[in-house]
Amino acid sequence: MATKALTLENINPHVKTAKYAVRGELAVRSEKYRSELASGKSDLPFDTVISANIGNPQQLDQKPITFFRQVASLLENPQLLEKEDVLKSGLGYKTDVIERAKWLLKEVKSVGAYSQSMGATGIRQSVANFIEQRDGHPADPSSIYLSAGASSGVNTLLHIMCASPKTGVLVPIPQYPLYTATLAVLDAVCVPYYLDESKGWGTDLSKIEDALKKARDDGIDVKSIVVINPGNPTGASLAADDVEAVLKFAAKEKLVVMADEVYQTNVFIGSFTSFKKGLRDLQAKDDKYNDIELASLHSISKGMVGECGHRGGYFELVGFDPAVVEQIYKFVSISLCPPVIGQCIVEMMVNPPKEGDESYELYKTEYDGIFKGLKERAYALYEAFKQMEGVECQTPAGSMYLFPTINLPQKAIDAAKEDGKSPDEFYAFKLLDATGICVVAGSGFGQQEGTLHFRTTFLAPGTDWVGRMTKFHKGFMEEYKA
Amino acid sequence: MATKALTLENINPHVKTAKYAVRGELAVRSEKYRSELASGKSDLPFDTVISANIGNPQQLDQKPITFFRQVASLLENPQLLEKEDVLKSGLGYKTDVIERAKWLLKEVKSVGAYSQSMGATGIRQSVANFIEQRDGHPADPSSIYLSAGASSGVNTLLHIMCASPKTGVLVPIPQYPLYTATLAVLDAVCVPYYLDESKGWGTDLSKIEDALKKARDDGIDVKSIVVINPGNPTGASLAADDVEAVLKFAAKEKLVVMADEVYQTNVFIGSFTSFKKGLRDLQAKDDKYNDIELASLHSISKGMVGECGHRGGYFELVGFDPAVVEQIYKFVSISLCPPVIGQCIVEMMVNPPKEGDESYELYKTEYDGIFKGLKERAYALYEAFKQMEGVECQTPAGSMYLFPTINLPQKAIDAAKEDGKSPDEFYAFKLLDATGICVVAGSGFGQQEGTLHFRTTFLAPGTDWVGRMTKFHKGFMEEYKA
Repeated sequence: MATKALTLENINPHVKTAKYAVRGELAVRSEKYRSELASGKSDLPFDTVISANIGNPQQLDQKPITFFRQVASLLENPQLLEKEDVLKSGLGYKTDVIERAKWLLKEVKSVGAYSQSMGATGIRQSVANFIEQRDGHPADPSSIYLSAGASSGVNTLLHIMCASPKTGVLVPIPQYPLYTATLAVLDAVCVPYYLDESKGWGTDLSKIEDALKKARDDGIDVKSIVVINPGNPTGASLAADDVEAVLKFAAKEKLVVMADEVYQTNVFIGSFTSFKKGLRDLQAKDDKYNDIELASLHSISKGMVGECGHRGGYFELVGFDPAVVEQIYKFVSISLCPPVIGQCIVEMMVNPPKEGDESYELYKTEYDGIFKGLKERAYALYEAFKQMEGVECQTPAGSMYLFPTINLPQKAIDAAKEDGKSPDEFYAFKLLDATGICVVAGSGFGQQEGTLHFRTTFLAPGTDWVGRMTKFHKGFMEEYKA
Repeated sequence: MATKALTLENINPHVKTAKYAVRGELAVRSEKYRSELASGKSDLPFDTVISANIGNPQQLDQKPITFFRQVASLLENPQLLEKEDVLKSGLGYKTDVIERAKWLLKEVKSVGAYSQSMGATGIRQSVANFIEQRDGHPADPSSIYLSAGASSGVNTLLHIMCASPKTGVLVPIPQYPLYTATLAVLDAVCVPYYLDESKGWGTDLSKIEDALKKARDDGIDVKSIVVINPGNPTGASLAADDVEAVLKFAAKEKLVVMADEVYQTNVFIGSFTSFKKGLRDLQAKDDKYNDIELASLHSISKGMVGECGHRGGYFELVGFDPAVVEQIYKFVSISLCPPVIGQCIVEMMVNPPKEGDESYELYKTEYDGIFKGLKERAYALYEAFKQMEGVECQTPAGSMYLFPTINLPQKAIDAAKEDGKSPDEFYAFKLLDATGICVVAGSGFGQQEGTLHFRTTFLAPGTDWVGRMTKFHKGFMEEYKA
């Protein structure tokens, strides 16, 4: 008899089933290496760990945007507002920084106080203004829920819709594993639809239709389709036509559209079309689309903001049954409220300094600089991949990731098998052990049977690490060549 | 046929079942009143809304502790650290504030970066040091998980242990509704055990034994016992003997002990004994208790800290099977990490300025002032309750709440029935409509059949609102007298 009340055999089986590779064994090992290096007692063949496994910009030296953090410093210590002269002359704080802090404090009273469960009213109004300006269609602040990052919003929405082990949700593959992990915990079914690598990882509607049909034939009650746009891990941005096609499909099949749009400003090729805009444009043409249910999510963690550690985000609900919305409200209220300082950064993200404001010039310089840096590093990495034997990579299009195919020699595949790993995991572990670079194996996101990938961010500064990767790859291919 | 994919009939039935009165209909109505008052266009018979429904100190004018917020302002804007002279001479920041900010930034790199899933290493070490000093027994930082408030920790632990609709958890009644709500969402069974109002809301072991036996007879697999100490909503603090008795019971019945200790510094009568200390003391006497599994939770939201909006907390695991701990790690990693600035405030809560530090005197003055204010208001409210007809209240012992019994006249009970409300809800709505004071009806926490209560915080400043309540009660009793 077990001596413990809780054992691996009797705990929640759905938690056990969940997989979350982004912070899995590879990431744990990389943290161990980081500690070893920090202790100064290490025989490791590298002197830094590069966490390319996770989109964590400020961990990789991206500087926060000054306006956001100046305002945040005043929100944390409102006593500073009693010394405006010191702030201005001694610390260089501009009038718009001080005004914004005062306004936000009026809205939240204190960043140490709980806000309303949905988030502070004035901040939700700012989000609505932003959406309206972005899309050219009105937005209703009472349909906007602030959240602790987009992850928390996804968790809420999936909790509401997953009613039984037969509930299914269409999820793009490759995907961000939050979706599969949360569906596993909720004991619901992930219905995968494959993105088309040969077409820059676009959505292929016929594949979605096939996936839906197969799931329904298997008795799955498919309730929703997730679209990650721009894509994670793929970086692909959907054209307006693709957005419209997905919406029409959702209307026909009565599916809730969950649009994960956290990379909406990380777009290098083409432009971003929000699902909200697509929906309103479509509804303007034909009112038979008036019943579509759309939840779209955004976050302060990505983009040029990169404030992951502050856990801020929002989701907007359109077309939901009010009785369902009430349940969503109740569900979020159990967690009390999203972090209030994160809510304030959401406000600043959607309402940054404008032309003519004192802080505008610096804001613009910082914002554009981060964008340019991301794009340059994406292309530098892409060029390096093109030179690597057996590596194929789509042109960088957006988000923070590249997701190259790796064609590994049979000997490597055999060695992986012997090691009890999938070939891409085997490769990723070897890469980490040799170079300190931590990526995520493609199997962590899902990939077409018979293909191998890894996901790497292009956030790490400099190019030294790209050189380390190239050198490793050459050695690996040599070691395992036929 | 429904026009929507999601309807009240087909969403997650377990979310529907969940109840969360603290932010329920009463709270929603109080927010509506607050907006009306703010708009200046209101005919309401009061001019402020008093949110006595929720322990939200800073919403009710409790000032944050200066040291915490000065450090936080530097964490948000590290550029300020380049101007130490201005900070010191112009803004009065002390050396220990600056040093603490530098140390925390070294630990987290940026408050905008994700930390490890369990929280930053150095902060977990500080928590371990605090526990060691509090209890006189060592603590292991690798067993400490930082969380987004204690709520998030409770959510994690219940997710792990609830394996089927037959899983049960012993929960004290009255209780904080987070437990029942989360168990409902997880489709597990809340096994209530009643606290003894006549003994200052203490735990009565025979009642716990009866509740467990009855549940097991009904085929419930009871895995854990929750103890809220000091109690919410009751304020009761357990003596060391009571703690030991619960631990022995848990060992005998093989139950995980979940000790919710978020009010550990809100103690007016007696002293706080942590379950961790109780456990180690017990184990020192007899090693047959070595297998007890204890999870104890703490938070920055309560105490004299009152930083709810920052969503910070931690839980410590003792005696858990390592394979189960691995699953807990994976589960928390799906949410990425707790808010980093909240983690930093956890660090400051457990490691505040010490005697001899430059900020100590101010810290001590603020801390003691908040404690004294809470105690004074608790007793003022208690005295008012003693004067009210039909109201009985235990002596204030701790936490942030009083939970008086109300004996209502039959006419009021009949009127409630006609109104489709429980009598205590009816009373609470009348109180809100007449005075702007929002409390929570006892039925939101659970109460013995045939008894009626309400929970009120004693956070609101001043005594005017107590007068409003007394006047309302007198009028209510008159209106409904036989």
